[in-house]
Amino acid sequence: MNKKALAVLMRARMRPTDPSKLALSPLSKEANQMISNSQEKQSGQDGFRKPDASSKIERSFEHVQKSMHLAISMNKTDMDAELNEFSEGYFSLSHENRQNLLLILAKDYDLNRMQIRELIKQYLGLEPPNISGSEAQLRSGQEEGFLSAFYRIEQNLRHALKPVYDVLFERLNTHPGGLRFLSILRADILSILAEENIASLRALDSYLKDKLSTWLSPAALELHQITWDDPASLLEKIVAYEAVHPISNLIDLKRRLGVGRRCFGYFHSAIPGEPLIFIEVALLKNVAQTIQEVLWHDPPIPECDSTCALFYSISSTQPGLAGINLGKFLIKRVITLVKREMPHITTFATLSPIPGFMQWLLSKLASQSKLAAEENISNSSKDTSATTFWENMLEPGEERVLMDSSENFASGKNGMEVVLNLLTSTNHEWTNSATLLSALKPSLMRLCVRYLLQEKKRGKALDSVTNFHLQNGAMVERINWMADRSEKGLQQSAGIMVNYVYRLENIEEYAQSYFSTGHIHTSSDIRHYVELQSH
Amino acid sequence: MNKKALAVLMRARMRPTDPSKLALSPLSKEANQMISNSQEKQSGQDGFRKPDASSKIERSFEHVQKSMHLAISMNKTDMDAELNEFSEGYFSLSHENRQNLLLILAKDYDLNRMQIRELIKQYLGLEPPNISGSEAQLRSGQEEGFLSAFYRIEQNLRHALKPVYDVLFERLNTHPGGLRFLSILRADILSILAEENIASLRALDSYLKDKLSTWLSPAALELHQITWDDPASLLEKIVAYEAVHPISNLIDLKRRLGVGRRCFGYFHSAIPGEPLIFIEVALLKNVAQTIQEVLWHDPPIPECDSTCALFYSISSTQPGLAGINLGKFLIKRVITLVKREMPHITTFATLSPIPGFMQWLLSKLASQSKLAAEENISNSSKDTSATTFWENMLEPGEERVLMDSSENFASGKNGMEVVLNLLTSTNHEWTNSATLLSALKPSLMRLCVRYLLQEKKRGKALDSVTNFHLQNGAMVERINWMADRSEKGLQQSAGIMVNYVYRLENIEEYAQSYFSTGHIHTSSDIRHYVELQSH
Repeated sequence: MNKKALAVLMRARMRPTDPSKLALSPLSKEANQMISNSQEKQSGQDGFRKPDASSKIERSFEHVQKSMHLAISMNKTDMDAELNEFSEGYFSLSHENRQNLLLILAKDYDLNRMQIRELIKQYLGLEPPNISGSEAQLRSGQEEGFLSAFYRIEQNLRHALKPVYDVLFERLNTHPGGLRFLSILRADILSILAEENIASLRALDSYLKDKLSTWLSPAALELHQITWDDPASLLEKIVAYEAVHPISNLIDLKRRLGVGRRCFGYFHSAIPGEPLIFIEVALLKNVAQTIQEVLWHDPPIPECDSTCALFYSISSTQPGLAGINLGKFLIKRVITLVKREMPHITTFATLSPIPGFMQWLLSKLASQSKLAAEENISNSSKDTSATTFWENMLEPGEERVLMDSSENFASGKNGMEVVLNLLTSTNHEWTNSATLLSALKPSLMRLCVRYLLQEKKRGKALDSVTNFHLQNGAMVERINWMADRSEKGLQQSAGIMVNYVYRLENIEEYAQSYFSTGHIHTSSDIRHYVELQSH
Repeated sequence: MNKKALAVLMRARMRPTDPSKLALSPLSKEANQMISNSQEKQSGQDGFRKPDASSKIERSFEHVQKSMHLAISMNKTDMDAELNEFSEGYFSLSHENRQNLLLILAKDYDLNRMQIRELIKQYLGLEPPNISGSEAQLRSGQEEGFLSAFYRIEQNLRHALKPVYDVLFERLNTHPGGLRFLSILRADILSILAEENIASLRALDSYLKDKLSTWLSPAALELHQITWDDPASLLEKIVAYEAVHPISNLIDLKRRLGVGRRCFGYFHSAIPGEPLIFIEVALLKNVAQTIQEVLWHDPPIPECDSTCALFYSISSTQPGLAGINLGKFLIKRVITLVKREMPHITTFATLSPIPGFMQWLLSKLASQSKLAAEENISNSSKDTSATTFWENMLEPGEERVLMDSSENFASGKNGMEVVLNLLTSTNHEWTNSATLLSALKPSLMRLCVRYLLQEKKRGKALDSVTNFHLQNGAMVERINWMADRSEKGLQQSAGIMVNYVYRLENIEEYAQSYFSTGHIHTSSDIRHYVELQSH
């Protein structure tokens, strides 16, 4: 190939906008739930034959159900063949029939409640070993006798509490390609549960999730640095799965694996040739404020001059592993590794998207400005009994400046409606006006910090990426204005990005306090935004 | 290095007879229980610092106990440091203090029986969903409601049935070097249990074993062919752990990794640089009848002429993994691999030692010949009331020939005593006489088959190697006279060795029937030996 042809190839756009693209962020649960169908196509790599066109003809439901039953029942001779038969049959089923089959699995292969009742009655019949101080001399001999009865029934109870479908999961796990099949099975379960909450399926999911997270314990995962020397089949997966900042062409990919950059993946031996999760790192002089300087930073600084390792993208590849946190261990191991190789690097930070900010803000602005307008009407009609409760999302000073500077761009009954109209204008027009940018900046930055730190769901950060990093033990360090001017960045978070910082010595403590109390560690700069508000 | 010096090096005896040698067969449980102390020395490779001379100074028991407590209690910030502290402290303890600490772990960090009682009372209070045919229409909605209460308490029960020490195991498993430490911990537990059966420690062991076998599921293990190109640090481990036929020097090792030979290991990413179990394979024209032709077969036949893959040695390296069957999956994977690479190989067999044969035979001969002698005396004193029960281990014809041919070598009141004296003579003198060899052969071969097929412990083959291969799905194919004339071979099994045969298509069926009924599949040749007897 001549030089020119090579240059064309390297610049060629990769996987333009393939709808069945496997790109998945561990961070966007919504996406995870839609993925199961496209995922199947990849399932045939190891033990299972690749489902070709012909095998996509749906097999009879009864046939697949029977093979599932055989794969669970004890005395099968050729277990491998049966497991293959079942998985191929499963892949051939329609969405509806998969749901039916999973429901049968959840209900008809559940645990034996009669047996559990029997065991717990025995258990209640046991005299608890009640050893007080004065009886301590009795301990060794007699207590051991007491206890062994407890141990026996407890052990039996533990076994009885395993549903029958545990056998299928265990067998699949020891079967080539089975772990991957289980991950697809779980992705399907999650996608059904997203539509309808079915108790038995929820129980199946929670059981399978526990099993998967045991099998995928960090001890079973290998950290591998992905480089330009890796097989094309692996690099192709990196391109396919990169969820945060899509890789546009081979030059882009090569840069992300080249000087001043690192890419690490966590691999499991049962799912060879592709990482379960991977992280992209840039070695920089300072913590980056915009994603463009990371993605287009060319040429990079000499690695020995860098003091910061910036995690600018984390992507997980298996929607069926949702809720199993591989990221925490990956990040900890990467930090340890980078620290050892490059002691001059002292800061470990991210430059992260805020995927839920705009969605939250726009719906908040819409509802509050509507309430405000209604109150205005009711106020004007002097009907003071109907006081609605609404909150002005804008500080008085902010609202004034905004109303003044937006005259030529958008209208509205109040400041909130103006902001709503500005933010939803086509082509993000507001980003082209210096006046608007500076008028909007104070409110958006302040509201963004409020969203990050104060908006919670079940006591945890509402934003999925925030929640991810906080549970990994990071702190919120800084937010950056106009940090991602891409269409996606403007749409998700009005272009704002956030730096989370990891300090190895605090990771466990921060993760623990976030886990137990929901406490979020922040820099004083960040706190400043919301403290201002409360004055 | 000149040629001569190299030749000397290659022939130099490796690790002469090091008492702390790590050589362990999965097959000899006795050995497994003695190993824990020597094992420790290797534990420092990954996360844990290598315990050097100074750290072998015993730390105070209270200090180690406290670090164990901290490693379990929730809110520790620097978990890694605490786990290191605990493991280092543990290694420094004496045998007695380790036992004390493990007892504390088993008892004081057991499960919360109050909580279990509470949950099972709730459980008993639930109305079981009793759906008869006529009520089937109620199913979907109402049943799901019923069930979700069950699911919730069952899930809670599952969690409550986890002892507190589960936390320690889980944390160690995610800690670098922790899996290895857990395996050493279990080796210690087993060695204590071998001396004394303590119910709480037995429960600890059984729980830890379950955890280890989940973490070491075949899906988490990688098969690697070990070759002369592997690092010396790995090859050194092969030499150290080879338990069946010790490797004498580098030439011996190189031959076992060279043409006509294969060596495969199962590796886990958390225990890098050494296999958990490995198998040595010889590619031969026919199933070998003596181990000498395998070990000294020089030059080997061209690999393309081979039709048999002979497994002549299987060694496991971690005594703490006793009872976790890694061998079955290893053998299945090796067969599949060899079959794919060399379709001309159609027979998969072992040439295996019979480690328990002589021990069983000698004790049987001693007790029965004593009983026979006593009955003789009582018969001569005409006291017919005292009839003892004894069994002549020899057939009448065998006994006659033996008494005739042994005159110059050994004496005895009966045939059994003669055989006993012959077999226990110094330097195995009997093996030097053609007369004795041919006189002893029929009885020893017959009794060996009886030992292999008919002597059982809890319904399973008494011989540990036999039990190992049968539970893996092999059949007993042939026994071979004077197959191992080494000191060890004569001592263990009077030089007899056995071929087990694996047929891929029968492995699961045979393993299953042996597991459920204890049935042993054999060739008709083998059956012949014991059928003769019953005529």
